[in-house]
Amino acid sequence: MNRVGIIGGGQLGRMLAQASAELGIECLILDPDPACCAGQVAPVHVGSLDDMPCLAAFAEQVDVVTYEHENVPTESLEVIAESTDVAPGVTSLKLSQDRLLERSLLSACEVDQPKHASVDGLSTLNDAIKHVGAPGFLKRRRGGYDGRGQTLVQSTDDAAEAWNLLGSTNCVYEALVSFDRELSILGLRDRSGHKLFYPLIESLHDGGILIRTRAPAPGAIELQSGAEEIASRVVDTLDHVGAFALELFDVGGRLLANEFAGRVHNTGHWTIEGAETSQFSNHIRAITGMPLGATAATGFAITANVLGEIPGPLQHPETLPPNLHVHLYGKKPAPRRKIGHATIVCAKELDALDAVGVMTSLIGPRHLDVNEFDAPARKR
Amino acid sequence: MNRVGIIGGGQLGRMLAQASAELGIECLILDPDPACCAGQVAPVHVGSLDDMPCLAAFAEQVDVVTYEHENVPTESLEVIAESTDVAPGVTSLKLSQDRLLERSLLSACEVDQPKHASVDGLSTLNDAIKHVGAPGFLKRRRGGYDGRGQTLVQSTDDAAEAWNLLGSTNCVYEALVSFDRELSILGLRDRSGHKLFYPLIESLHDGGILIRTRAPAPGAIELQSGAEEIASRVVDTLDHVGAFALELFDVGGRLLANEFAGRVHNTGHWTIEGAETSQFSNHIRAITGMPLGATAATGFAITANVLGEIPGPLQHPETLPPNLHVHLYGKKPAPRRKIGHATIVCAKELDALDAVGVMTSLIGPRHLDVNEFDAPARKR
Repeated sequence: MNRVGIIGGGQLGRMLAQASAELGIECLILDPDPACCAGQVAPVHVGSLDDMPCLAAFAEQVDVVTYEHENVPTESLEVIAESTDVAPGVTSLKLSQDRLLERSLLSACEVDQPKHASVDGLSTLNDAIKHVGAPGFLKRRRGGYDGRGQTLVQSTDDAAEAWNLLGSTNCVYEALVSFDRELSILGLRDRSGHKLFYPLIESLHDGGILIRTRAPAPGAIELQSGAEEIASRVVDTLDHVGAFALELFDVGGRLLANEFAGRVHNTGHWTIEGAETSQFSNHIRAITGMPLGATAATGFAITANVLGEIPGPLQHPETLPPNLHVHLYGKKPAPRRKIGHATIVCAKELDALDAVGVMTSLIGPRHLDVNEFDAPARKR
Repeated sequence: MNRVGIIGGGQLGRMLAQASAELGIECLILDPDPACCAGQVAPVHVGSLDDMPCLAAFAEQVDVVTYEHENVPTESLEVIAESTDVAPGVTSLKLSQDRLLERSLLSACEVDQPKHASVDGLSTLNDAIKHVGAPGFLKRRRGGYDGRGQTLVQSTDDAAEAWNLLGSTNCVYEALVSFDRELSILGLRDRSGHKLFYPLIESLHDGGILIRTRAPAPGAIELQSGAEEIASRVVDTLDHVGAFALELFDVGGRLLANEFAGRVHNTGHWTIEGAETSQFSNHIRAITGMPLGATAATGFAITANVLGEIPGPLQHPETLPPNLHVHLYGKKPAPRRKIGHATIVCAKELDALDAVGVMTSLIGPRHLDVNEFDAPARKR
C-alpha cells in the first residue's frame, strides 16, 4: 500500500496526512479548495465531491480511499469503490449521514439510547413529543453537525416553530437526557475484524461544539468493557474498517448511545501525545492493512479545542507551561471555527486537575468552569 | 512568524516540516530535487544552493531560514541573511563545515577532546603522527560525514597511503580514542540565550553510521551536568540559535568532545515519542521565537536506524510489537542510505533491555549484538 487518498482537506484530513507521512505512506487530498488546510502538508487534487470524472482521476492515483467527514455523496463513494479500495465502506458512510438510520441500527444492535421517534411533519412531531416526552431535541436527519440542524423543544407549544425552524425537512425527535457527563469510546477495527479501543474519554460540549476532553475519563474503568461491547456490536454489524467513535451519555453509570462517527474523532486528539499510538496513525494502519499500534494511555491527558481565533495566551505564549502541546491547523480564524487544539499529558491524575487551570487561561473561563468540570454529578 | 524556509529536503527537513505543521507554521523546502523526501509533506522551491537569484526568491517567501545539513555554501547563507532572518547563524554553519575550526573552537572553550593536529601535507602528517601518537584517524577538514572522508592510520608507515587516499586535501589528524561508549548531549538555545537539554543519549555507530540509540543513557545521570556545561560554552560562544548536539566519548566517566552539530541530530529521533517535546518541534520553536517545549524523557527509548532497505520484519510487520513506532522517510532504498527509523518507549529501564531484542529482529543481528550493547565497559 503506497498511497492513501483522503476525501476532505480539513484538520482531520491534515492530521491523517501527517500520521501517514510518519509511516512513510504518501497521501493525496481531495478537496474543492486548493488552499484547504491539509494542503499545507500533502498534495491536493482539487475537485468537487460530485464531479465523477474528477473523482475517478483522484481514485486512480491512490491505493485506498478514506474520508475525513460525512459530507461525501454516497453515490460518489460507490463510484470510487468500483475501481478502488474504500475504507470505511459505503455502509458506514450512509449510517453517519442519516440520524434516523443511525438510531435504527443502534436499536437493531440492542444498544441503549435516548427515546426517539421519526418526524416527517408537524403532526408526527406532535405525536413524537407525546410519545417520547418533553423537553427534547428536534434534529434534522441529515446535515447536522456541531449543534447545527437541531433545536430544543420544551413542549408541544414549541412544535410548529421548531418544525419551521429546521426547514420542514425529515427529522428525528429525541428525548433530552439529563446526563452526568458525556463520554466517548474510540476504537479501531482492522480488515480482519480485530478491534482495539482507547480508554474512555470524558468530553464537555458547549452549544454543540466540543470544548475539551479528559482521558482516561476519571472513574470510568468499570464502564470500559461495557462501552467496548456496545461499540463492537455496531462496528461488527457495519463491517467497519478504520477508526470510529461512539459518543455516550453517562447517566449514573448507565450508558446511552448518543452518536456514532465512523472516522477519526474530535474527542481523540489527545491520542497524539497521550496514547502509545494516535488515532490518526491507527486509522491509516487499519485501512492500509498494517498492524494496529498500541492504544494504551501514557498518562492523563487534557485537551482543549481552540475555537474562533487564537486566544491571547497563545499569541504571547511565554507564560504557557512547557508541557503544553499546541496544534494549530493553519486555518483562517472565524467565529466558532475549530482552528487548533492543545494537549497536556500529566503523569498523575491529580496533576491533570492542575492542567485544567492552565487550560482555563488558554481557552478562557467562559468555556472552562473548573468547579463544573470537576463535579461528576453535574446535570444539564 | 508565519513561514519557515528549510534548506535541504532530506529526512531531517521532512521531520522539521512535520513538526512545524503541528505548530501551525507553514514551511517551504529548498532543494535541487523536486522529488526530495521532504517534498511529500511541504512545498518545495526547486533550486541549487549556489544559485543566488533562486535563493533570493526562496528567502523572500519566508520569515526565517534554517538548514537541515551543513552542505550549504556559507556565501549563500550570507546572501540570504542580508534580507532574511537566518537561524542558526553563519558562524554555526562555518564551524560545522570545517573540522579544524571545530577543534579550535572546542580548544578555545576549554572543552576536553582527543589529541589532534592540523595536516596540510605528508610532512605535517608525519609530524602529527609523532606528536599525537598512533593509531589515529586522518580526516578531511571539509565534506566528511557518516564515516566518509576519513581513514585509520596505524603508524607512520601508513602515512603516504592515507594522505593519497583522502585526495591530498587539508586534513586533521586525531588520536584514536579507546572509549567505553559514545554519548551525545542534545539541546536547544533560543534567541535570548536560554538553553534546554535532553537527557544524555547513548549511541552505537558502525562504520561511521549511527545504528541505534538509548535514551536516557543508562547510568549517565552524574555525567549530565558536565555535558550540559561544556555544550553550553560552545553554543554561547557561537551565539547559536536552534537545536544542537555535541557527540562525546565516555572514557571511564571522563567526557571527550568528538563532534559538534549545529542542527537537529540523528541521535535525537527518539525525542518524537520519548520526550515531552521533540527536537524538531523545539528547533522550530527556537528559531521562530516561540517558547521551548519541555525536554524531559517520558520513558526509556531505544531507536534503531533503518539503513539501505526496508528489513523483512517491517515488510511483514504482523510480528512486530504494537508499541513500535516506525518512521519511514519515503526515500528510495540504496546501500547504507538512512530510509527510516523505529522507536520503542518503555516505562522501565529493564523493559528497554527487552526492546533491544525486538530491535535485533528489526534491523538484523549484524548491527545489534545484545551482549556488546549492554556491556558498558566495551572497548573498541
